[in-house]
Amino acid sequence: MREEMLKSILSDLNGSSADIEASAVISTDGLTIASLLAANMDEDRVGAMAAAMLSLGDRTAAELARGELEQVMIKGDGGYVLLIHAGHDAVLTVIARKEAKLGLVFLDAKRAAQGIAELL
Amino acid sequence: MREEMLKSILSDLNGSSADIEASAVISTDGLTIASLLAANMDEDRVGAMAAAMLSLGDRTAAELARGELEQVMIKGDGGYVLLIHAGHDAVLTVIARKEAKLGLVFLDAKRAAQGIAELL
Repeated sequence: MREEMLKSILSDLNGSSADIEASAVISTDGLTIASLLAANMDEDRVGAMAAAMLSLGDRTAAELARGELEQVMIKGDGGYVLLIHAGHDAVLTVIARKEAKLGLVFLDAKRAAQGIAELL
Repeated sequence: MREEMLKSILSDLNGSSADIEASAVISTDGLTIASLLAANMDEDRVGAMAAAMLSLGDRTAAELARGELEQVMIKGDGGYVLLIHAGHDAVLTVIARKEAKLGLVFLDAKRAAQGIAELL
């Protein structure tokens, strides 16, 4: 029930732009809560990378006096990985193509993260 | 000589916006090449965190098929840390206040990173 509601938020998010390839809700310790990934993407791998980035992002923000971590963005020449806190216990991961309009993707992702936080 | 030219690029960058608090050029293995940091910021700490983020960002971009790493952004509720590749061997780290206009900071930082890459 709750998983379906989470999936429906992810499905809305993935549908909001053709440049969003995949999205997933991951617990802060790296376990998948819900995901809508492309067939060639491994759920465990996405979870593990997200959890590692999150933990290092947390530490970096703290060490460099940037306060509590809210978002991480990784840009490669082939696209983006975004991590956005969805409440305290989970993080929304969004994987987007390089053509994505980042401002728009962040806006939609932040809205989705809010919806997810309310469900968890 | 080269260090002074690097410092002058950092000084121009820090001066381009009141919201840029500090910047540094760091080798991909985490050693400081040049830096213009606030008095309360430790050079070694900035270098170490930047190198760790860079290495994990590289791996994340590769594992999730996002190509070669170009940028990492960490947003805390107190501000931003940006990492931007400056050529193959170095990375420009920019530490900015939460009020910063991110698009403008990225634009100035990318220009600075280009100048740095030409010097190294």
